[in-house]
Amino acid sequence: MDLKAIVNSIKSFEGITRKNLITDVTTVLNDTYNIAGRTFLGFGDDASAIDIGNGNLLLMAADGMWGKLMEADPWWAGYCSVLVNVNDIAAMGGIPMGMTNVLSTRDMGICNEIMKGITAGVKKFGVPMVGGHFHPDTPYNALDVSITGIIGREDVITSCGAEIGDKLIVAIDLDGQKHPKFPLNWDTTTSKTPQLVQAQIMVMNELARKHLVTAGKDISNPGTVGTVGMLLEASGAGATLEINRIPRNETVEWEEWLKLYPGSGFVLTVKEENVNECIKLLESVNITSNVAGEIIEDKKLYLTCDDQKEVVFDFNVDKIMGIKEKKSENRS
Amino acid sequence: MDLKAIVNSIKSFEGITRKNLITDVTTVLNDTYNIAGRTFLGFGDDASAIDIGNGNLLLMAADGMWGKLMEADPWWAGYCSVLVNVNDIAAMGGIPMGMTNVLSTRDMGICNEIMKGITAGVKKFGVPMVGGHFHPDTPYNALDVSITGIIGREDVITSCGAEIGDKLIVAIDLDGQKHPKFPLNWDTTTSKTPQLVQAQIMVMNELARKHLVTAGKDISNPGTVGTVGMLLEASGAGATLEINRIPRNETVEWEEWLKLYPGSGFVLTVKEENVNECIKLLESVNITSNVAGEIIEDKKLYLTCDDQKEVVFDFNVDKIMGIKEKKSENRS
Repeated sequence: MDLKAIVNSIKSFEGITRKNLITDVTTVLNDTYNIAGRTFLGFGDDASAIDIGNGNLLLMAADGMWGKLMEADPWWAGYCSVLVNVNDIAAMGGIPMGMTNVLSTRDMGICNEIMKGITAGVKKFGVPMVGGHFHPDTPYNALDVSITGIIGREDVITSCGAEIGDKLIVAIDLDGQKHPKFPLNWDTTTSKTPQLVQAQIMVMNELARKHLVTAGKDISNPGTVGTVGMLLEASGAGATLEINRIPRNETVEWEEWLKLYPGSGFVLTVKEENVNECIKLLESVNITSNVAGEIIEDKKLYLTCDDQKEVVFDFNVDKIMGIKEKKSENRS
Repeated sequence: MDLKAIVNSIKSFEGITRKNLITDVTTVLNDTYNIAGRTFLGFGDDASAIDIGNGNLLLMAADGMWGKLMEADPWWAGYCSVLVNVNDIAAMGGIPMGMTNVLSTRDMGICNEIMKGITAGVKKFGVPMVGGHFHPDTPYNALDVSITGIIGREDVITSCGAEIGDKLIVAIDLDGQKHPKFPLNWDTTTSKTPQLVQAQIMVMNELARKHLVTAGKDISNPGTVGTVGMLLEASGAGATLEINRIPRNETVEWEEWLKLYPGSGFVLTVKEENVNECIKLLESVNITSNVAGEIIEDKKLYLTCDDQKEVVFDFNVDKIMGIKEKKSENRS
């Protein structure tokens, strides 16, 4: 395996480099993210968290569908708008409560396909689309969906809790196929039952309630290595990651596999004593899980392959999102 | 006053006719709006409501900014994205908790102005923008914002609760000015203190907690008469509305005034015995309020002017949104 070539390919991967611009947008909001004194967790995680009392947090996330996706396969764009939002809540250990959307198109054919895709997603994931806004007169097609979930204040899984010595678990549902038009979409859900798909979401809630993980993120556009990088950036730590320990469907080559957006995939950091229970729970819902690395003090992500070793990110100089996770004073 | 001309102008007003397309989009979601069994209130209100237990409802709404607004005045578009969402929660009697946004633009100048407008809105209304998604590579400019709020299950104000004989209160902050580029935007907030603006939002929560109203909506793009129409459509009732009883800033002519989107304006239905307390509370925060009509069984909205009388909407044949409000079996 040419590890250096894989690392170079990951470093220039658009799914990761595109995240760089986020700080330009969020910096201006830094002063006000906790204006009402209830914000528990601001920018930089899969979802933000607001303390509503009674020991509960609201989790809020939003995602826009890429224009390319909307035009090439509007059904899939609608379906994925549900999938990505539900995964953002699952990554925090939360229970998704409902979604809203803003749909902009003047093409009623595209509109209908998108709505059919959304409906299929709602049925698959069991989370209702309860409202939204429709722009019938735009010269472009766009779909933006937001989601709200609930999690216990003491249970929430963040990206920023990884600690030196924690084991790094990579957990991916290997039973899927590449989307014919979007080979980086590893579709693991359309051919599964709603029961199994929803169990995959709820297993994260179980890990959260049992306090089995110290940090977690869903694997999204930046792929497995990019997502590990974002978790490390938020936690202010580094890690080793052994490529051969990352669960993989062997029909897909490594370089591509590490960039895939899986329908169900997470990176988690876990104390050694909780590793077995964590893996057992994930595997009970068909998510193949391995310890693939360890959190280290040195703020770099090293990808290793047997005795080869390459630096993917050096957080002393590199940034992915560049966001130091906004934690409010409210946080315990 | 030429009442017939005013009524004809309202009937063809784009702010109202544009609402007609909503059913095309929402019909397909009708089967699934309560898929998880927690939806208390689905499509057709200012916000949807989800029962999270503990006697509380989540309120969720989303709004997209018109493209015209984005290009002509991106600061104002950003500011209004906060205003319209906060008003959607206020209209339900809720307390706004937080917002997320999806911003699409490749023009960093527009992006900065939008973010400055959002920040100004966050500071004015005291509701944080806690997260979102940025598309840095779209050929169009778009801003979609969603909001989540909280309200007691027994306290929520809906659009669908108006009952025959209820008094119809129109409540508008008259202290404002038309936006120089968007004369239908009646800006009542930019020159007021955050304290007063937030008190105007919270007065709706007080009306809700005291159970002083049977139904309510914030006056939005369809203007005062269009908003009354939407409330009647959701409630399955009609009303009389005496134009001379509608609070008005006399620098603005009637035809235009009735189409304005005020920074703080509501239509409310109220039992006679609660009218005085309701008006007193609204006027304590500078929202001028009058009984301007009454709910009737005849499913028509009659606009009257002394002894003239014209039908604006006949809900036996006309539709605005055409949505029969989706109430779940969960509802008491």
